[in-house]
Amino acid sequence: MTENMDFRKMLREAINERCHLLPEDSGKAVIAQFGMKVPSGKRVTSFREARRVASELGYPLVVKAMAPDLIHKSDRGAVKVGVESHSVLRKAMGELRNLFPGVPLLLEKMVAPGVELITGLIDDGHFGPCLMIGMGGFLTELFQDVNFLMLPAKRGEVLEALMDLKGFKLLSGFRGRPAYDIDQTVDAIMGLARFGEEAAGYYESVDINPLIVNERGAIAVDVKILLNPTFVAPSCEELSVDTRSLDRFFSPRSVVVIGASATTGKSGNVVIRNILANGYAGKVYLVNPKAGEILGLPVQPSIADLPEGVDLAIIVLPSKETPQALRDCAARDIRQIVLLAGGFAEVDEYGEEIQHETIQIIREKGLRVIGPNTSGHTSTPYQFTSSLFPLGKIRRGKVSFLAQTGNFATHTMRYILTGEHFGVSRVIGLGNKVDIEESEALEYLGNDPETNAIIMYLESIERPKRFLEIARKVTRRKPVVMLKGGITEAGKKAAVAHTAAMALEDRLVDGMLRQAGIVRVREYTHLILAAKAFSMNPLPKGNRVSFLTPSGAMLVTLSDLCISLGLEVPELEEETRQRLQDISPPFIRMRNPVDIWAAATVRGVEFGYREGMEAVLKDPNIDAVVPVLMLTRETGIPSYNFILELAKKYPEKPILVTFSAEKRYMEECKEFLEPRGIPTFPEIEQPFEVLSILYRCTKSMNRPR
Amino acid sequence: MTENMDFRKMLREAINERCHLLPEDSGKAVIAQFGMKVPSGKRVTSFREARRVASELGYPLVVKAMAPDLIHKSDRGAVKVGVESHSVLRKAMGELRNLFPGVPLLLEKMVAPGVELITGLIDDGHFGPCLMIGMGGFLTELFQDVNFLMLPAKRGEVLEALMDLKGFKLLSGFRGRPAYDIDQTVDAIMGLARFGEEAAGYYESVDINPLIVNERGAIAVDVKILLNPTFVAPSCEELSVDTRSLDRFFSPRSVVVIGASATTGKSGNVVIRNILANGYAGKVYLVNPKAGEILGLPVQPSIADLPEGVDLAIIVLPSKETPQALRDCAARDIRQIVLLAGGFAEVDEYGEEIQHETIQIIREKGLRVIGPNTSGHTSTPYQFTSSLFPLGKIRRGKVSFLAQTGNFATHTMRYILTGEHFGVSRVIGLGNKVDIEESEALEYLGNDPETNAIIMYLESIERPKRFLEIARKVTRRKPVVMLKGGITEAGKKAAVAHTAAMALEDRLVDGMLRQAGIVRVREYTHLILAAKAFSMNPLPKGNRVSFLTPSGAMLVTLSDLCISLGLEVPELEEETRQRLQDISPPFIRMRNPVDIWAAATVRGVEFGYREGMEAVLKDPNIDAVVPVLMLTRETGIPSYNFILELAKKYPEKPILVTFSAEKRYMEECKEFLEPRGIPTFPEIEQPFEVLSILYRCTKSMNRPR
Repeated sequence: MTENMDFRKMLREAINERCHLLPEDSGKAVIAQFGMKVPSGKRVTSFREARRVASELGYPLVVKAMAPDLIHKSDRGAVKVGVESHSVLRKAMGELRNLFPGVPLLLEKMVAPGVELITGLIDDGHFGPCLMIGMGGFLTELFQDVNFLMLPAKRGEVLEALMDLKGFKLLSGFRGRPAYDIDQTVDAIMGLARFGEEAAGYYESVDINPLIVNERGAIAVDVKILLNPTFVAPSCEELSVDTRSLDRFFSPRSVVVIGASATTGKSGNVVIRNILANGYAGKVYLVNPKAGEILGLPVQPSIADLPEGVDLAIIVLPSKETPQALRDCAARDIRQIVLLAGGFAEVDEYGEEIQHETIQIIREKGLRVIGPNTSGHTSTPYQFTSSLFPLGKIRRGKVSFLAQTGNFATHTMRYILTGEHFGVSRVIGLGNKVDIEESEALEYLGNDPETNAIIMYLESIERPKRFLEIARKVTRRKPVVMLKGGITEAGKKAAVAHTAAMALEDRLVDGMLRQAGIVRVREYTHLILAAKAFSMNPLPKGNRVSFLTPSGAMLVTLSDLCISLGLEVPELEEETRQRLQDISPPFIRMRNPVDIWAAATVRGVEFGYREGMEAVLKDPNIDAVVPVLMLTRETGIPSYNFILELAKKYPEKPILVTFSAEKRYMEECKEFLEPRGIPTFPEIEQPFEVLSILYRCTKSMNRPR
Repeated sequence: MTENMDFRKMLREAINERCHLLPEDSGKAVIAQFGMKVPSGKRVTSFREARRVASELGYPLVVKAMAPDLIHKSDRGAVKVGVESHSVLRKAMGELRNLFPGVPLLLEKMVAPGVELITGLIDDGHFGPCLMIGMGGFLTELFQDVNFLMLPAKRGEVLEALMDLKGFKLLSGFRGRPAYDIDQTVDAIMGLARFGEEAAGYYESVDINPLIVNERGAIAVDVKILLNPTFVAPSCEELSVDTRSLDRFFSPRSVVVIGASATTGKSGNVVIRNILANGYAGKVYLVNPKAGEILGLPVQPSIADLPEGVDLAIIVLPSKETPQALRDCAARDIRQIVLLAGGFAEVDEYGEEIQHETIQIIREKGLRVIGPNTSGHTSTPYQFTSSLFPLGKIRRGKVSFLAQTGNFATHTMRYILTGEHFGVSRVIGLGNKVDIEESEALEYLGNDPETNAIIMYLESIERPKRFLEIARKVTRRKPVVMLKGGITEAGKKAAVAHTAAMALEDRLVDGMLRQAGIVRVREYTHLILAAKAFSMNPLPKGNRVSFLTPSGAMLVTLSDLCISLGLEVPELEEETRQRLQDISPPFIRMRNPVDIWAAATVRGVEFGYREGMEAVLKDPNIDAVVPVLMLTRETGIPSYNFILELAKKYPEKPILVTFSAEKRYMEECKEFLEPRGIPTFPEIEQPFEVLSILYRCTKSMNRPR
């Protein structure tokens, strides 16, 4: 890019002159430097000058009043289009001067019609500079057909965001319209994206609406740059990318519980019980001023009494005692710390102060901290947990949870342990994130050989740029699923009135997660169900499902569901169909989905499901199979061993089981299958909802670079 | 309406002349009779004539080529707009004649710009004449911002369908645009609706695109009437609206099982066991050629051996024996019949023939029949069922199921009986609907004092007009919830490729159910969960929810969920807030939703939830309350009695319970609460999904007339 003007200097000067909306001609000059086409034009102060400019430019022209507060220009009569002659020009200028006295006028060559897009930038408090791409004009507001991307965005991501618009067809030869040059359009938007990065801090938002795409390319017809009145040069991205590993948290050779308690039920007691119940093999120290013994372990009266260099401290003290405890730990060279207490920034100003002090000590002493306001973390490969919630022995598995909240170290984990059969690998409750946040934790889990899949729950993302960078890599290696909780601050205050505010943040999150390759889910329960499937199932190769049900109504409603979830229920190979026909009475014409009950009635439930499942598992058109087992004593309970055998025989195809009829047998089926590695789901919709999540993971891991 | 032309005669003649697309001038003449404005215009054959017409009409003009196969005229250059002078007109006509030689031309006054709507008719094989209203031009195809209504449609319904468009704002003064006359717009559409009814059978579809709404009103600028080449005068609506009641099916004084079997497991045996297990008090007869005794009851060798006038026959014979059995029943004056066997039209051509014969016998003999291909029906107030599935005693309740399928008389009922605690009143499995169909059954349930709520599963609607009429009334008295299963025939053949086809039928169903006041659900599981809530909860007065959770993450994610479900989580009265604050430690600022765990920790789980729930139940801003109970032995299991007491004290506010943590206690909680009338839900999202269904029912029952 040839920079024939120091755009930063110009923007700075405008800000210093308390200019909020940059005059349009200046705005266009700036973005033109970044390779965006703009209409030829010139600011004019008199009709005499205008006539001269008009002769240079040639009619038809547009005249615009560049008032500093005009947001919706065309709505307020500040734009005169289709000016075809000197006399019309004189009239137009006269009218604009009456309506907007003293406002400078801009004369521009009128742009030939085409498709109106909108593109823009918003410097979001949370996500930093973000790029918007959408259908322009009135379509933007009415249909909200827009997509967001975090910057920096890759060209392929911009193209995808453009092609994903409902209105994209308008660009590509819709019903006999011309097909425009998509490359040029993406080039133009990439220019704006570069401006968005290079000018970060100078603007609040940029609106290019319309960006007219016609035979000549993509032209920024209207450019509104809202400057940032409180401009500060953006800080150099990350303070310091910490390269020290989180390993010690997940494989501590020794641990100390500071604030150990002898009272059952107190957090300082529960933590110790959890550590012991998990069979932790390292050395366990306890600290409490009362000294003595707790649960058979000796208690040190103070941190100073500990040996040097204990790997990990779990601090269970009131928030106000935390700063001193941190200093004491640092003095004993204890550098990994979990802060279980609450009472920090999440409660009041006093807590905020303590949190601030805590952060200073962490920086100063070079400590690594999880929390505060967390319920702990877990590492089953090392038989270790710092959870303050009564959990007992935590089942080992290959799925890791990374959560802003303590739920996965507390009641949700308790549910998983008592209501499900899968285990976990690492669990991290980030809490207030004074030090370790999701980016670093995600990077750790991405590299962790004990983690096959990552389940996240986040309410905020601390360093979105770093997070995006890391996530882009991790999601090519492992499935990553996220529930994003929470609405904007504005939204939180009056949730319903601010749906729009939520929608905005929601779109930013959507765009960013798509760039990151993270599969977004919308229900808390899906985090648990997906974890179960990741624990037991391979990822499906594609989205082609076969399912076997005992009832026509289920065939119909589950087919409908598949379509709405983006799953296919394809035709089977003739050989497969024939096999299904062979096991069924002749009056049913067998196909996919499979109406299995007639076969089950005539040949036995086990035979019907076994042969039916094997037929579709064998079929090259099928990526995953869901049997809906009908279970009653009278109709016969199968042994279920056949499902294990089929899973072994077709290891690349996920089998997800659901059922109907008698509750008791459903539960028995779950108790049999799940410990043996086949997931079951109590509601018939769930296997399909989960398959859709798994398939989106497959697609994301294989996405083009 | 002044009919200055016999439009039916004209349409008939056009059809006889093998005209498919009615010439536009004729189409406009027809709809003008129904009160729609059309542009002034005239068909011209020479430029000479055109010049004369142009002088009459005045410029600017539009010239259109009226080729019989032009569907997207403007895409193919068949329309010249903005013709401003004789010379331009001559040129335009020349071009059109070159492009479309021999095609008649239409000269019209150009309509001033405005908002482009689309409106149209489709004579759907299923739903009969339906009206479409949407945003016109390219918006239609790209954004599919259209709504459908079945005819006849009420004016209020048309207005609602118009206002419900995302693009409606364009009509009502959007960003400084003019606000147009909505009344005139609705008048125009109502005119088309009248045509749609009166001309039913003559057209396949009508497209008015655009219907331009400007200062002069709503003008049908382009009118395409596709005639029905296989025109047949529509049959006089209903053959005969049967007014005989279905009472006998649900309170038979005597019943005979024809095809009774001594073999355990056979349908002819299961039916008898079910009847006995339910404690049916009427007389039970059995028929089987072998005579003898089954389950202690005497068996008659033939129908002829039965006494006259048994109230109800349950026929469990192969399909081919059914016609004779029906005749024999008629001979003994047995007039109510349940046909349990399959093997009719659903299997093959031979079955179709038998079904046809069956229908003839029914008509001839005046029988009333449920089925065939059904699994039976149930009437717990009369302790009776005809189900062929082993069910045992069916729990009595106040919710009735009306289903196309036998699921609710078979495995789904078995699940409800073994996995849930609510009961049912009437259950009807319609099967192939040779006689009794959903309209009549819905009318019966609507008038049934034993039915408080109606749950429907339908795959087809036999007489949509009658169904709509009946449903409009019933839904004002009782909540009616429906899952519509199934896609169009075209869609069934290749589900994924025909998403569009499905979407179309889906939109028709959507529009019709909205007119009918039926609340549509999308998941099978929701039919069961809604039935549970109807059985135990009052309907909420509004959509304002309070919920109490043990975890911040749940506060956040469930608030998000509420917004997406159309539920509000409003601010509480200051008094309520104070009460919540009083029971909590001071460091938490209490509000709605309620973060209850600190209170539960400090003051006890039962105290915390009880006092918290009572505070919000008392609050006039709250319509429904959801406690998320956290259940572990260590943190304390409450007695749950307090929930019963609260439900009694605040009978107008639904309480829906869900939980987290230990599975075993969740199940115990369900076992305690549900038999006592409080519904519980295993997944935290479900109470909210169900509340949203209940609230939509409230809104529907109170909708304006």
